[in-house]
This record gives sequence, structure tokens and C-alpha cells, in this order.
Amino acid sequence: MIPGGNAGSVLGIHVFHCPDAVGIVAKLSECIASRSGNIHSVDVFVPEKKQVFYSRSEFVFDPARWPRDVVDNDFNKISKLFSAEKSVEHCLVDLLYRWQEGRLPVDISCVISNHQRAPNTHVALFLERHGIPYHHLPTSAGNTREAEILELVEDTDFLVLARYMQVLSRRFLESYGKDIINIHHGLLPSFKGGNPSKQAFDAGVKLIGATSHFVTEELDAGPIIEQMVERVSHRDTLKSFVQKSENLEKQCLTQVIKSYCELRVLPYQVNKTVVF
Amino acid sequence: MIPGGNAGSVLGIHVFHCPDAVGIVAKLSECIASRSGNIHSVDVFVPEKKQVFYSRSEFVFDPARWPRDVVDNDFNKISKLFSAEKSVEHCLVDLLYRWQEGRLPVDISCVISNHQRAPNTHVALFLERHGIPYHHLPTSAGNTREAEILELVEDTDFLVLARYMQVLSRRFLESYGKDIINIHHGLLPSFKGGNPSKQAFDAGVKLIGATSHFVTEELDAGPIIEQMVERVSHRDTLKSFVQKSENLEKQCLTQVIKSYCELRVLPYQVNKTVVF
Amino acid sequence: MIPGGNAGSVLGIHVFHCPDAVGIVAKLSECIASRSGNIHSVDVFVPEKKQVFYSRSEFVFDPARWPRDVVDNDFNKISKLFSAEKSVEHCLVDLLYRWQEGRLPVDISCVISNHQRAPNTHVALFLERHGIPYHHLPTSAGNTREAEILELVEDTDFLVLARYMQVLSRRFLESYGKDIINIHHGLLPSFKGGNPSKQAFDAGVKLIGATSHFVTEELDAGPIIEQMVERVSHRDTLKSFVQKSENLEKQCLTQVIKSYCELRVLPYQVNKTVVF
Amino acid sequence: MIPGGNAGSVLGIHVFHCPDAVGIVAKLSECIASRSGNIHSVDVFVPEKKQVFYSRSEFVFDPARWPRDVVDNDFNKISKLFSAEKSVEHCLVDLLYRWQEGRLPVDISCVISNHQRAPNTHVALFLERHGIPYHHLPTSAGNTREAEILELVEDTDFLVLARYMQVLSRRFLESYGKDIINIHHGLLPSFKGGNPSKQAFDAGVKLIGATSHFVTEELDAGPIIEQMVERVSHRDTLKSFVQKSENLEKQCLTQVIKSYCELRVLPYQVNKTVVF
Repeated sequence: MIPGGNAGSVLGIHVFHCPDAVGIVAKLSECIASRSGNIHSVDVFVPEKKQVFYSRSEFVFDPARWPRDVVDNDFNKISKLFSAEKSVEHCLVDLLYRWQEGRLPVDISCVISNHQRAPNTHVALFLERHGIPYHHLPTSAGNTREAEILELVEDTDFLVLARYMQVLSRRFLESYGKDIINIHHGLLPSFKGGNPSKQAFDAGVKLIGATSHFVTEELDAGPIIEQMVERVSHRDTLKSFVQKSENLEKQCLTQVIKSYCELRVLPYQVNKTVVF
Repeated sequence: MIPGGNAGSVLGIHVFHCPDAVGIVAKLSECIASRSGNIHSVDVFVPEKKQVFYSRSEFVFDPARWPRDVVDNDFNKISKLFSAEKSVEHCLVDLLYRWQEGRLPVDISCVISNHQRAPNTHVALFLERHGIPYHHLPTSAGNTREAEILELVEDTDFLVLARYMQVLSRRFLESYGKDIINIHHGLLPSFKGGNPSKQAFDAGVKLIGATSHFVTEELDAGPIIEQMVERVSHRDTLKSFVQKSENLEKQCLTQVIKSYCELRVLPYQVNKTVVF
Repeated sequence: MIPGGNAGSVLGIHVFHCPDAVGIVAKLSECIASRSGNIHSVDVFVPEKKQVFYSRSEFVFDPARWPRDVVDNDFNKISKLFSAEKSVEHCLVDLLYRWQEGRLPVDISCVISNHQRAPNTHVALFLERHGIPYHHLPTSAGNTREAEILELVEDTDFLVLARYMQVLSRRFLESYGKDIINIHHGLLPSFKGGNPSKQAFDAGVKLIGATSHFVTEELDAGPIIEQMVERVSHRDTLKSFVQKSENLEKQCLTQVIKSYCELRVLPYQVNKTVVF
Repeated sequence: MIPGGNAGSVLGIHVFHCPDAVGIVAKLSECIASRSGNIHSVDVFVPEKKQVFYSRSEFVFDPARWPRDVVDNDFNKISKLFSAEKSVEHCLVDLLYRWQEGRLPVDISCVISNHQRAPNTHVALFLERHGIPYHHLPTSAGNTREAEILELVEDTDFLVLARYMQVLSRRFLESYGKDIINIHHGLLPSFKGGNPSKQAFDAGVKLIGATSHFVTEELDAGPIIEQMVERVSHRDTLKSFVQKSENLEKQCLTQVIKSYCELRVLPYQVNKTVVF
């Protein structure tokens, strides 16, 4: 039994992606029901004429009756049956406790920055209180220090880039091999690269935005997960463009990390996402 | 076979509401799969601690292989199994054609009004072109003419009230026995009754709204289906309050009729709705 | 006296743009007050560190006491005093009547299209009812027929392009010499050129938009007047992208024409606009 | 000269409210220009048929050439001329510096609460760092401790109530004599009084909101300054209603305090506000 979880009160989330076929929902839900799991939510997406299938199911189950290795085994059989490309399940008993306190369902293992940590800021106090290490790795054009970064993050489940001004190399992406989420304070595909607020200001737009996307080799061109906008007018200055953008960045990234940790974000086709 | 539908291309929508139990999704999806129906979308709602279950499934099927009476029979068995309070299915082959042209999935059988029809208006031309009868039934405090209205509408699937300024009697509601949707140009539960724009204007609000709800015996107090708002300022006059409200009314009602016809709207608890 | 206007009830709008200086608002308002005009609204924009001044004033006046030629003369003197680059005034007595009926404050002199007019459509009926000529000028790569277009529009106050798929030549822009407004169903500066909905769909964006801008020689690159967005998800198809874009186009263009006719839109710097 | 202000770089804000007349804007702007003040922004509001005038002007001036007592004297003359009910001006040199750092233009003189201060919270740390006193005044039905509160706040410019669950007495309102702003986490005039989130949840609304208003003797019925809304669905629980409401409360109150300190909020008629 998962420690801390009441029998029967553990929330499972299962995500599934395979070629479309008759009977997938039936098999998945039958499997859960046969273990006395109770489905609370199902999302299914079958794009028109694309012959692919995506689903996400939330179910409550009793880990004493359906232990983790049996869960894995059960879903693996279905994956084989339908030649699934992706099949992931999470057990969310302790995350749920934290959600109830309004925290993101995530543990921050470290912060890596090419700036020195400013003392006594909100961020510094937060990191100290939670014992999160801060690594100062000043990078330069000649030395992106990717090997050091890789060593620091190799045990993490995913990375988040915020105002990270370098393109990660193909070698880094392949070595890390897991998802990397970036937040860009511009409305992609416009305003790629540095200083998007300035670019937007100079373009005289009436709406500014932020975009969160998966990182690929190409700068600011990976699959878009979420975008948010805010109105600007001729009265806005470059400064207020920057402030509004920063605000949008925070909202957009928070939303995306929450969705990602709840297994709501799936890659779709070459450069798109499904966000359940 | 349903005329006009390609074999295998008919869209079925099934809505289900029953006490919560293990295995409902499994049974429903197994039933559809066993008839070679292919699920495209599932919505499940199991409210916390309420022990009830709501679902809505969209599936594509071949009416030659799964004729309507067999569909009915199949779902009826599941209804009995889970003591369902509600189980409805629609076959949407011809509606789909119209949706593709952007029209609401609904046939208007008549318009009843206590105003004379103004000639040469948009509405008049629309009704003429589509051969929709217009009944002029002037009502008064003493004579609400409910018997005549009832006769005109008894074969309809549901009623829509727009700017209907009378409370329908319990007798009428019971005799008609089907859903009645009202649109109110105020943000209920504020501003019930007549002249909600004036009420909102006098209250000095900074947001005005429209509310669509099911009609019950109590004025403007039935379960809310949808609400929309728009910003107002000190520069708005009573006239612009009215214009903005009318605009919101139209958007809100259009949205609700579309959702209702797609079987997305379900009553929930005494005075709430589930809108999938 | 302007026919149809009650003495004292005519609304004047005056727009002014000049190098910044002390006393501009004072001079303008003193001028209006000296003729017994009563200011109802003033907008002033003095961008930080830019040393330029923009204003828009609404005032009620009596044309019997302040005839149009005297109005012109009065404002011309102030223009000279402050070396104004722009000074325009409108008298809005009859437009006001139409505004009160919710119509745009504009007379359509003709519609020019390279498609045949489809009979019995909303547009066709509207044009017939209002006696607005429809000119069918099929263009080709080799023959943009700009000379003919110019002849048809030379007496108009401004042009509106909607789904006009050609770049107007510098010669045309200079010959016409007045403002040309375009509506583009994409979120500029992204998705310039043809098929912006398809471009946005392929880019996997989560927000789509429409942009109205002044036309310049460069395709879809003129000063932006207004932008609107709507949310899309993985469930949206290319078709629904197109439908949502068309809806945004209409709203955005309607808003811009209204603002433009109320003298709210001013060019600002090289490629920006002030929208009061 | 105002300390800390560069000559010529001080921002003045002047707000004016009087019966409507010809020439008010002229007089005000002439006055500012005659002292070499440079107007950057003017807002004028003359409600239709109401014969009243409201304005707010921002201007840059040199306090060496236009000292504060002369400013007062100049505007007082105009007040007398037009029988102004309200005429206030602020000099914003030091506030401006703080605005540039994104802080609210306000000094918090103390926090009064009927709860003990929880140690080590964000709030506690903030108050300590800024040396802001925290007064613990537990109130009861029999003892609202208004005399003590009054003594603590009598030197302040305005009060802000947040989750203050008592109605302030007429005696308190009259003794304090300055503006009191309340934030209510419901969409007034619906859901007055305690637990508005619960009231909204029980009413089955599809939009929840927050309302900031001036405090009057009547509970939650004073002139509304700002309202904000957010969408809710059947999936929202009472808990998420509460969380969304709290979020709206914060945004709404922050916005209102900023507007209020910039002299943008004026009472209008009996129970409305002008918010420039």
C-alpha cells in the first residue's frame, strides 16, 4: 500500500496514445473496473481523419487491491494490444495533499543560473526555506557548460527554462532525453529570440503575449503548449510592455507546469500538443 | 439505414446519468465497441462525495450494422443495470450536414409573440423564407393564453423564451413537461424581473451580463446554464447598457441552444446544471 | 445652420497633432469656449520624451453662432500657431442620428470585387436595398486594374480592403492619397500573406487572431490599429480555425471603422497608431 | 522646490468636479499653461443631460516656478469661479519613483486585525521588513472597538477593509470622515454579507466575481468602484470557488488602490463612481 494513502482513496491518472481502433475506451475502462477502480474523468481525442487515439483517465483505486506492479502490468498488456506509442500512469496520493494546499505538484531539485543569487529576495528566501540548491554557472558564447548542467539535472523528470538565453544543443537534448519546457514572453511564432517585448513594442502591436512550448533544437520553435495575451495601447511604454509580459509569463508558466504534472500535455503530430 | 448518411459515418451522442458505481464507463464503451462503434469523445463527471455519475459519449457507427431500435435496446439494458435516471441518445447524421454550414442544429416550428410581426424586418424575411409560422397572441394580466400556447407547442422538443415577460404557471410547466430555456439580460441572481438593464444601471455596476437558465415556477430562478459579461463604465448610458445587454443575450442564447441540442446540458442537483 | 440639427445640439469632433508645447489644450479649449462650445470629452496623448502632442476633443455647439467656415478658420489659426501636422474637425449632426440606430457612421459608395455577386445572399439584398453599386473587376497577375479601381473610388474618404489578395502599388497609394484600411485574419506580424488560418493551424498556436491595419506598400506590414484573439485547442480543425477567424475579422473591422469614423485613429511614429 | 524632484519634472494631478458650464477646460488648462505646466493627459466626463462636469488632468511642472501654495491658490480661484464641489491636486514626485519600481503609490501606516498575527508568514515578514505596526483588536458582537480603531487611523488618508466582517457605524464613518474602500468577494449586488463564495456556489452560477466599493452605512451597498469575474463550471467545488474568489479579490483591490491613489476614482451621483 502506498504510504499515507487511505485504502481506496488513491487517485490514478493514466494517459494513452495509440493508432485509433474500435474498443480502446472499452478495454481501458474494463481493466480499471475489473480492479474495482472508479473512473472520475475521461478525456478522449480522436482527430478527424487522422486514425490516432489519445486518452487521459482519472480513477480512484485501492492500492492494497491493485498494487503498483499489477497496475503497470495491466496497462502494459493493453499497450501491446493496441500498439501504443505512449502509456503512462501516475499514482497521486501524496501530490494530492499538496494540491489541496494550492502548491504546484512538483519538487524543485535545483535552480541553475548564470547570475549570482541576489540575497534577501523573495526567491532567495524561498530557496533557503525549502533547502533547494542554487547553482551559479556563468555561461559564455564559447562555453555553454552543458555537461555540467546535464550532470546536475540528469535525475529530474523534466526541465523548465525561464529567460534562458541560449539554444540547447542537439547533443544536450538527446542526452537528457526528457521534456524541456520553455516560457517565452512573446506571442510565438512572432518575436522569436531576444527581447521579444522590445520587438513587439517596435512592431506597434495592440496585444502582447507569452508562449510556453516544448524545447527543440530550433530556437523558440517547439510545440506550443499555452499562450496568453493582454491588451496594450499607445499609452504603453516599453517598460509597461515588459511588465505586462513578465506578468503573462508567470501566469502562463504556472498554468503549464500544473497541466504538465497532471499528465494533461501530450505531443501531437510533429509540432503540436494536445492539452486535456 | 438513415437516409443521407454514409454507412459508418453516423454520429451518435449518448448521455447517461445514474448513481455512481464501478464499471459504468466500461459497460457503455464495451456496448459501443461490440457494435463496432468508434468513440470520439467521452465526458465523465463524478462530483466529489456525491455518489452520482454523469457521462456524455460521442461515437461514430454504421446504422446498417447497429439499427436505431437495437441501439435503444442496448442502452436500455445498461440503464436498468445501473438504475439510470436519464439515458438519451441521438443520431446526428442530418444535423451534422447543417452544422457544417454553421447553422444551429434545430428546426424552429413556430414563433409566438404578443407583438404584431413588423413587416420587412430581418426576422420577418427570415421567417417567410423558411416558412415558419408566426402566431400573434396578445396576452394580458387576466389572460395569459397558456392553453393556446400549449396547443401550438405540444409537439416540440423544447421551448425558448426570449423577452417573455410572464411567469409560466405550474400547470403549463407540468402539461408541457419538457425543457424550457429562458434568456435574461441580467446577471442572475441579481436583477430578476423586468428591466434588468435599468436595474443594473441604477446599481452602478461595472460589469453587466446575461444569464440563460431553465424555466421553473419561480421567476428567473431556475438552474443557470450559461452567463456572459461585458465591462461598462461611467461613460455608459442606460441606452448603451441596453445595447450591450442585447448583444450578450444573443451570444449567450445562441451558445446555450447549440450546447443543449448537442446534449451537453444536464440538470444537476436541485438548481444547478452540468454543461459538458 | 446645418439642416436637421437643433441649434446648439451639433456635436463637433476636433483632432490635433503637433510638436508638444505649453498651452495647446488651453488654446484649443479657449477657442471652443469663446464660441460658446461646451466640451464633453478630451483625450490628450503626449508620449514620454517624444515632444509630440495628440488630442481629440468632442464639443457641443450651435452652428448658428459658430458656422462651419468660422470653425475652420478658428482651428486653422491654432494650427499655424503650433505648426500642426494634422488638424481635422467634423460636424456630426446627421451621423449622430444614425449612430443612435446602431449603424456605422459611414456611407458605402460602392463595392468592388473580383468575384461575381452571388444573388439572394444577405450581402446582395443589403446592397440592393440601399442602392449600392457592385463592380465586378476580375483581376489577374498581369492586370491588377488599379486604374479602373482608382476611378471608382477617387471621391471616397477612405477605402476598406477585406480579403483583398493583392498588394496595392505605390502608384495607386500615392494617387489615391487617402487612408486605406485592411483586415487580415491573422495575428500580425505572424502569418502575413495568404491563408493565415492555415498558417496558424500548421503552427499549432493556442490563440488565433485578426488584425486591422493601415495599408502600405509592404504586404500586411502597415501600422496596426486593432487586434483581437480567440482561444483554440487541439480539438479545433482547420475549418473551425477559419470560422473563428472570420468571426474575429468582422468584429475587428467593425470596431475599427467605427473608431476611424469617429476620428479616434491617428498615425503615430512610422508604423504605429494612437487609438483614442 | 520639492525635495528629490528635478526642476520641471514633477507630475501634478488635478481633479475637478462642478456644475457644467462653458469654458471650464479652457480655464483649467490656461491656468496650468500660464505657470508653464505642460498637460500630458486630460479626462473629461460630462454625463448626458446631467449638467455636471468632472475632469482629471496630469501635467508636468517646475515647483520652483509654481510652488505648492501658489498651485493651491490658483486652483482655488477656479473652484470658486465654477462653484466646484471638489477640487484636489497632488504633487507626485516621490510617488513616481516608487511607481517605477512597480509598488503601489501608498504608505501603509498600520494593519488592524481581530486575528493574532501568524508568525513567519509572507505578511508577517513583509510587515517586519517595512516596520509596519500590527494591532490585534479582537472584536465581538458587543464591542466593535471602533473608538480604538478610530484613534489608530485618524491620521490616515483613507482606509481599506479586507474581509472585515462588521458593519462600521454611522458614528465611525462620520468621525473618520474620509474614504473607506471595501473588497467583497462576490458580484454585488448579489451575494451580500458573509460567505459570498458559498452563496454563489449554492446558486449554481457560471461566473464568480469580486467587487470593490466605497463603504457606507449599509452593508455591501456603497458605490461600486471595480468588479472582476472568472468562469466556473460544474467541476468547480466550493473550495475552488473560494480560491478563485480570493484571487479575484486581490487583483480587484490592487487595481482599485492604484486607481484611487492616482486620483482616478470620484463619487458620482448617489451610489455610482467615475473611474478615469
